[in-house]
Amino acid sequence: MLAPDQSSFHATKTIGMAKHSYRCKISSSLTDAILFVGGVMVALLLFCALWSSIMPVPNPTPTFSSAVTRPKPSVSEVFASDDCAQVVVSMRVNRSHDPSSPTFYDDPNLSYYVDKDKPIKNWDKKRREWLKHHPYFSPGIQERILLVSGSQPSPCQNPIGDHLLLRFFKNKVDYCRIHGYDIFYNNVLLHPEMKTFWAKIPVLRAAMIAHPEAEWIWWMDSDAAFTDMDFKLPLERYREHNMVVHGWEKLIYEKKSWVSLNAGVFLIRNCQWSMDFMDVWASMGPQTPDYDKWGKTQKSVLKDKVYAESDDQSGLVYLLLEQKEKWADKIYVESQYYFEGYWLEIVERLENISDRYVGIETSAGELRRRHAEKVNGYYAQLREPYLKEAGFGWGSWRRPFVTHFTGCQPCNGNHNRIYSGESCWKGMEKALNFADNQVLRTFGFVHGDMLDSSSVSPLPFDYPSSA
Amino acid sequence: MLAPDQSSFHATKTIGMAKHSYRCKISSSLTDAILFVGGVMVALLLFCALWSSIMPVPNPTPTFSSAVTRPKPSVSEVFASDDCAQVVVSMRVNRSHDPSSPTFYDDPNLSYYVDKDKPIKNWDKKRREWLKHHPYFSPGIQERILLVSGSQPSPCQNPIGDHLLLRFFKNKVDYCRIHGYDIFYNNVLLHPEMKTFWAKIPVLRAAMIAHPEAEWIWWMDSDAAFTDMDFKLPLERYREHNMVVHGWEKLIYEKKSWVSLNAGVFLIRNCQWSMDFMDVWASMGPQTPDYDKWGKTQKSVLKDKVYAESDDQSGLVYLLLEQKEKWADKIYVESQYYFEGYWLEIVERLENISDRYVGIETSAGELRRRHAEKVNGYYAQLREPYLKEAGFGWGSWRRPFVTHFTGCQPCNGNHNRIYSGESCWKGMEKALNFADNQVLRTFGFVHGDMLDSSSVSPLPFDYPSSA
Repeated sequence: MLAPDQSSFHATKTIGMAKHSYRCKISSSLTDAILFVGGVMVALLLFCALWSSIMPVPNPTPTFSSAVTRPKPSVSEVFASDDCAQVVVSMRVNRSHDPSSPTFYDDPNLSYYVDKDKPIKNWDKKRREWLKHHPYFSPGIQERILLVSGSQPSPCQNPIGDHLLLRFFKNKVDYCRIHGYDIFYNNVLLHPEMKTFWAKIPVLRAAMIAHPEAEWIWWMDSDAAFTDMDFKLPLERYREHNMVVHGWEKLIYEKKSWVSLNAGVFLIRNCQWSMDFMDVWASMGPQTPDYDKWGKTQKSVLKDKVYAESDDQSGLVYLLLEQKEKWADKIYVESQYYFEGYWLEIVERLENISDRYVGIETSAGELRRRHAEKVNGYYAQLREPYLKEAGFGWGSWRRPFVTHFTGCQPCNGNHNRIYSGESCWKGMEKALNFADNQVLRTFGFVHGDMLDSSSVSPLPFDYPSSA
Repeated sequence: MLAPDQSSFHATKTIGMAKHSYRCKISSSLTDAILFVGGVMVALLLFCALWSSIMPVPNPTPTFSSAVTRPKPSVSEVFASDDCAQVVVSMRVNRSHDPSSPTFYDDPNLSYYVDKDKPIKNWDKKRREWLKHHPYFSPGIQERILLVSGSQPSPCQNPIGDHLLLRFFKNKVDYCRIHGYDIFYNNVLLHPEMKTFWAKIPVLRAAMIAHPEAEWIWWMDSDAAFTDMDFKLPLERYREHNMVVHGWEKLIYEKKSWVSLNAGVFLIRNCQWSMDFMDVWASMGPQTPDYDKWGKTQKSVLKDKVYAESDDQSGLVYLLLEQKEKWADKIYVESQYYFEGYWLEIVERLENISDRYVGIETSAGELRRRHAEKVNGYYAQLREPYLKEAGFGWGSWRRPFVTHFTGCQPCNGNHNRIYSGESCWKGMEKALNFADNQVLRTFGFVHGDMLDSSSVSPLPFDYPSSA
C-alpha cells in the first residue's frame, strides 16, 4: 500500500501521466501529420523544381536582344504564377475535347462578321471563360500567334501574279513551320463590299472568334515575305500594347503623312480593345454610307494622301491623330527593326547581306553544323553574338525581318509607276530565293544564284568552310 | 524511500522503461521515416494519376473505326510504359536545344540527295540516336506526320494553273492546321534531271533527313485536295508497313495494270526500308543511263502502260510484281476508303454528300454547336455514329477523304483528252469549295454555291437548324 503522500503523488502523477499521455497522443498525431504532409510538400517541391526547368515562362525583364533567348524561371516564380497541379492539367493540347459548359459560342447574338448593330462586348471575359474550360491551351498562350494572309478569290490579272502569290504563301508557311505558328490563308470576301485592303478586317474578326486560343493575330499582306527565318517577334516589348505597326511617330504626329506607317503588316491582340478598334476602323470602309465622306476627311488631314477613296492605312493614321487619347497608347509604332521593310531599300543589299552571313559561318564552326529544322532556334541563338554590330533596320547588314513589296501589286500588275514591273518581279524573286536559301539549308541545298529560282545545288558537308 | 520490492520493481520498471524508451525511439524514428516517405509516395501517385489522364498514349487495340477516337490510358499503363520523370522531361518540344553529342548530321558521308554511290545505311539506328538526344520529340512520335507537296519552279503554262495550285496548297495547309501536322511545299528541282513526277523522290529523302522527328512523310500531288477535313489516317492499320498507296491488289497482281495503284498520294515511313526502296525506285528515273531501257521494261510487263517513258507509278507497280518478295509485305495497298480518290467518280456526288451531312446536322443538335477550330476533333467524333451507314470509298455518301485530279494537269493544262478542260476546272472548283466550306464553318461562313468561289454568306446561329 502506498503511503498517503505517495498515493496522492502517484495519483497526481497518474493523472498527470494520463494528461501527458493524452497530450502526447495529440502531439504525436500532430507530429505524424506534420511528417506526412512534410513528405508531400517535399515531393511537390521536387516536382515543381523539375517543372520550372522545363516549362517556358516569359522573360520577366525583357530587352530587345532577348528576342531569341528566354531565361528559366525560378521555383518561386512558378509557385507564384501558377498552381503546379493547374499547370499539369493544362499541358495536354486536346483537340478532341469540348466541354458542354456554355461559352460565347453558345450565345445566339455572337456575330462572326463586322456588324455595327452587333458589336462584340466583354470579349476579354468571354475568351478567359473559354480558356478556363480548355486549360490545355493556357501554357505558352502569351506567345501563341495565328498568322493570317490572303488574296482575291479569282485568278490574278497579272500572268505571273498567282505564281508569285504561291511563292509568297509558301514563304509564310515555311516561317510558321519553323516557329510553330498556325497560319490561315483567306481567299474569300467575307463582306461583299469590303474589298482589297478593307477585306482583311472581317477576316481578322472571324479569326479571333475561331481561334480564342491565339493571343495575337498577325496580319501579313500577300506581297510581304519573311527574309529572316530565324528572327522571332520580341513579344515582351509589346506586352502593354494591343497593336503593332511599322512606322515613325514623327511622320505620324508632325508630318501627318499617309505613309507614316504601313497597314500591310501588323500584330493585333485578340482582345476587346481590338474588337472595338476594328469596328471604328471598318466604319471608314466602302460598305458604309460615309465612305465618300471619309475619303475627303482623310485627305484633308493627311495632305500627301494619294488616292481619293478612303483607305485602311490612311484610316489608321487618321485615328492615331484625331482619336489619339482613345487609341494611341495601345498602338506600338515600331521603327527599330524591319517589322515591315520597304523592298526598294532592301533588295539591292541582299547579296551583300548573304555574303556577310557566309563570312561569319566560314569562321564560326558551330554555325556550320548540320541539324534538324526543328532545332533551328538553337543555331539562331548561337549566331546572335556575331550579329552584335549588324544593327537593325535601314542601313544594317542583318537579314531584314520582313520585306514588303508595297506598290508592286503582283496580282493585278498595276505597280506604282515610279518603278518598273521588272524591278518588282526581279526584286521579289531575289527576296524569295534569299529566304528560301535559309529554309533549303536544312534540306541540304542552296540557290547558287538568287535570281535563279529553278536551280539549286547540294551543300557540301561543313559548308561554307569547304566552299 | 521505496520498499525493496517496489524498489526492484521500480528499477526493473526504470530499466524496462529505458529499454522500452530506446526501442520506442528507434521504432518512433522508423515510424517517422515511414510517414515521411508515405507522404512522398502519395504525392507521386497523385501526380502520376493526374499525368495519366493527360498524356496521349496510343490506342492498344486499334480498329478502323477508332481512326478518330483515342481512349485514355490507365495509371498502370503509364507506369508500365514510361517512367514518369522521363515523360516529364520529354514533354517540352524544345526548338532551342541541340546537344553537342554527335549524330548522323556530323557524318561527312551523309548525303541529302539521291546518290547511288552514297546510299544511307543504318538509318533506323541513326534516327533513334538523334531521338535519344532530343527526347522531347518522342511523345506522340508514331503519329507525327510531315506532309510534303510541291510544284514546278516556274509559272504554269495554263493561265489559271498557279491560281489552282495556290488553292490546292491552301487546302492542304488548312488540313494540316486542323490536325497539327507540319507541311513542306517544294518548288525547286533537287536533281536537275529528275523532273515532273520523279522530282518527288529527292524531296522525300531530303525531308526525311531534315525531319528525323517525323515518323511518316505523306506525299500529296499538287492536284490532290482534302475533301474530308475531319478524317484522320488510321495509322494503327499501317503499323506493320512502311508505305501506303491507294490501289487494288487484283489489278496489280492479276491484271498487271499501270493504274492498279496511284503514286500521287502515299505515306512512306521515315526508315531504312524507305531509303533502300527509294534508291531502287529512283534507279528507273531519267537521271540514270538505263532510263530508256526502263521505259521498255515497264511497258513489257504492264501492257496497258500509256507512255513510252519510264514513270514512277509504273515503276512502283513493276517493283511490286517483279521484286514482290523484297518489298510487297511492307507496302499496304489501301482500297477501303478514298486514301486517294479519282475525281471523275467523286465530283458529281459532292452536292448530294453535302446535303446528307446537312440533313444529319438538322436533326443532331450537338453537331450544330459553334466551336473553336482547335476542337474540331471532338465534333468529328460526335458525327461518326451518324455516318455508320455511309460506307467508305466508291458509292458511299461519306465525304471522300482525298480527291485527286489525276489527268487534269492544272499547271501545264495538258489534260487527258477523255475529258474536257472545263470539266476539270469546274470539278476542282467544286471540290475545293466543298472542302473550304468545312473550314469556313468555324469562321462563321459558307459558300452557298459550290461553283462560286468568291461569295460566301454568314452562317446563322444554330445552322442548319434555322436554315
